[in-house]
Amino acid sequence: MDDTLALVMFSGTDDKLQAAAVLTAGAAAVGRPVHMFLQYWALDAFRADRINADHGAAPEAGADGRAAMANLRSAGQASWADTLRQAKELGDVTIQACSLSMDLLKLEQSDLDPVVDGVEGVAAFMFAAGSGQIVFI
Amino acid sequence: MDDTLALVMFSGTDDKLQAAAVLTAGAAAVGRPVHMFLQYWALDAFRADRINADHGAAPEAGADGRAAMANLRSAGQASWADTLRQAKELGDVTIQACSLSMDLLKLEQSDLDPVVDGVEGVAAFMFAAGSGQIVFI
Amino acid sequence: MDDTLALVMFSGTDDKLQAAAVLTAGAAAVGRPVHMFLQYWALDAFRADRINADHGAAPEAGADGRAAMANLRSAGQASWADTLRQAKELGDVTIQACSLSMDLLKLEQSDLDPVVDGVEGVAAFMFAAGSGQIVFI
Repeated sequence: MDDTLALVMFSGTDDKLQAAAVLTAGAAAVGRPVHMFLQYWALDAFRADRINADHGAAPEAGADGRAAMANLRSAGQASWADTLRQAKELGDVTIQACSLSMDLLKLEQSDLDPVVDGVEGVAAFMFAAGSGQIVFI
Repeated sequence: MDDTLALVMFSGTDDKLQAAAVLTAGAAAVGRPVHMFLQYWALDAFRADRINADHGAAPEAGADGRAAMANLRSAGQASWADTLRQAKELGDVTIQACSLSMDLLKLEQSDLDPVVDGVEGVAAFMFAAGSGQIVFI
Repeated sequence: MDDTLALVMFSGTDDKLQAAAVLTAGAAAVGRPVHMFLQYWALDAFRADRINADHGAAPEAGADGRAAMANLRSAGQASWADTLRQAKELGDVTIQACSLSMDLLKLEQSDLDPVVDGVEGVAAFMFAAGSGQIVFI
């Protein structure tokens, strides 16, 4: 059995990135390898000059939802980026940027936050995911 | 082989909730266990005082899409909540609220519709999902 | 082990459809069967009279993201529909419309682009997915 948890990250809003970070931390905590693949707007959120910015929330969050998220943040909840950094220290967590999305957004790896380990193509991602679970967020 | 179907419910619009309810009913009908984990805006949609409200649709639905959904509803199609209730009678379907999202939205279990069985953390969810399929909606 | 990759297509924006097409092509290239199931707004995007239209992007794409996608397209990048057609020639790729969503949108199979192989219910989809990976996009 392949217990790798593979996450295809598409969305770049703080609510979905937080959901992904929590799944990553939970899987790492029980000893499972996690392989995260950054595409499109999720990749954009990992730019070194934007990773700490406010990336908004899904439209359906509404004013109440955005306020609830802001409250947690001002109460000291770890950001999704910090949760991912902690998960990498705790377990076997790899974060790779999708090469096609790097081209789309005209990015070099030096444009990305160091929490990103490298750049790979979709074939390498499929190989890394193996027969484990794949989650698209 | 683990045939559990695990659903991480993030979105709270009626179109995605309906899609999830249909997958749940389909899996339950063929005897597969289903474990649903409610986060963020999906959890909000299961509040006892809102579960029967109109939760809208994804922005891309457009006016035509929303009208099509309203037509089906007025023609007597079961709501996603009713489809889930029927699936629970039919098969092994568990619906759990994510404890972190309960804190985010300042909810107690008594605020939720009785179709929700309880509250659990992400580690418990990962354990329940086992090596089965995980779908993020 | 079941190496089928099953994709539940819900969203109909060009960015998510492109992400799905790339995953499909990647899986087909390494010899894996791919089974795509079209629901809701994704199904709408496969209508014969709309498949080549501009289907927009997720709201979070913003003006910069939409411009980046338009740039790639004018530079000759294959559309998601063309990528799917190529993947079908290359490997074992099946594309089925969800019968419930066909009813929702009042469509007949003759309304759909020929890249769609047929119409099936959710039980048939679950059977086709088997114990392989399921990805909801």
